[in-house]
Amino acid sequence: MDHQERREAIAHALWRVVDQHGWTRATLREVAREAGVSLGQLQHYFATREAMLTFAMECAADRTADRVTRGLAALDQPPHPKDVLRLLLTEMLPLRADSRASSRMSAAYVVEALHDPELLEQATRGLRDGRAMVERLIRQAITQGHIAPDRDPDIETDLVIALTGFTPLLELEVIDPRAALAAINQHLDRLFTAAPSSRPEIGSHGGVRAAEA
Amino acid sequence: MDHQERREAIAHALWRVVDQHGWTRATLREVAREAGVSLGQLQHYFATREAMLTFAMECAADRTADRVTRGLAALDQPPHPKDVLRLLLTEMLPLRADSRASSRMSAAYVVEALHDPELLEQATRGLRDGRAMVERLIRQAITQGHIAPDRDPDIETDLVIALTGFTPLLELEVIDPRAALAAINQHLDRLFTAAPSSRPEIGSHGGVRAAEA
Repeated sequence: MDHQERREAIAHALWRVVDQHGWTRATLREVAREAGVSLGQLQHYFATREAMLTFAMECAADRTADRVTRGLAALDQPPHPKDVLRLLLTEMLPLRADSRASSRMSAAYVVEALHDPELLEQATRGLRDGRAMVERLIRQAITQGHIAPDRDPDIETDLVIALTGFTPLLELEVIDPRAALAAINQHLDRLFTAAPSSRPEIGSHGGVRAAEA
Repeated sequence: MDHQERREAIAHALWRVVDQHGWTRATLREVAREAGVSLGQLQHYFATREAMLTFAMECAADRTADRVTRGLAALDQPPHPKDVLRLLLTEMLPLRADSRASSRMSAAYVVEALHDPELLEQATRGLRDGRAMVERLIRQAITQGHIAPDRDPDIETDLVIALTGFTPLLELEVIDPRAALAAINQHLDRLFTAAPSSRPEIGSHGGVRAAEA
């Protein structure tokens, strides 16, 4: 294995430790054991726990971006902005095993970042980039007439991002994936109500089937 | 100090450790040091780290409930269900120092609970109770004509709860409290649109001032 492959193998070992034993157990020592390397070998790749976490978070973000890219390619071209937003949201939520791993990583990272300036910077950048991407899509959809021009793009962006708030509810099985998808579709149906003549205001649930297909 | 007071003093020491150094440092040993007691004394009150965390989480939930009770008493009587929902959301979000402490505790607790069956049960119960309370308020508001009868109470409940998704955005200062309040008010204004004749559909922002007052 080359340097990068070894780092990725260690990141995967970290994920397994976090997934099985939780975040507090994810020390350099424990991850070295899981990766089958000595502590000294692991420190050759990551000098500190923070450096290891940051790299693991980057890997998780890359994997999410890959899933989004594949999802975008599978949509009708050019994709409708509503379908793009639905895809972004569903890939950020813990709805399947792969997105759950990234989502758990991300939640734990935010909790850690509150007490670590280095992690904080990366976590903040990730969230800011995500919000900026959603805002661009919404502003574009307003310009293109998919969203009514009297909607405030900042507020609508925040309301879309807020839907990632389903994360703890899904993780703790307070709601199921079907309910989360129904709520996301309801919200997007209401958002993408352009001129009153072009779409019905309420009750267009076609998107539920599309997301579940 | 009696037994209960000592336990609460230890819970406060735990919060200080979590707040200053993060969750991974919140071991029995570190909390004993912060509380100014020996490890043995601390274990007299909490046999395990999990028991300590669970108690600290209960204290945080009690404090949130106290803030909500005081907030409810300060509303016009009987309170409008929209004001009640706004109060619940703003007390659950990290908008001020006191709600931030409970919110951080809660986020970290969920992250830990994913790997600990005992914590999981309590965390799940807390979220379920919170969701059930919001659902009752929404069903009642539909019955009383404050919310249009064609709204789906389950979906509307989940969409209101989703607004707690502002937590990481506020914690990492990606959005500010004013933006979170504006989005919450926008969502509630749209939800509490009963018969078209009774309220304007969009743009009634009076609630922003009420929440900031």
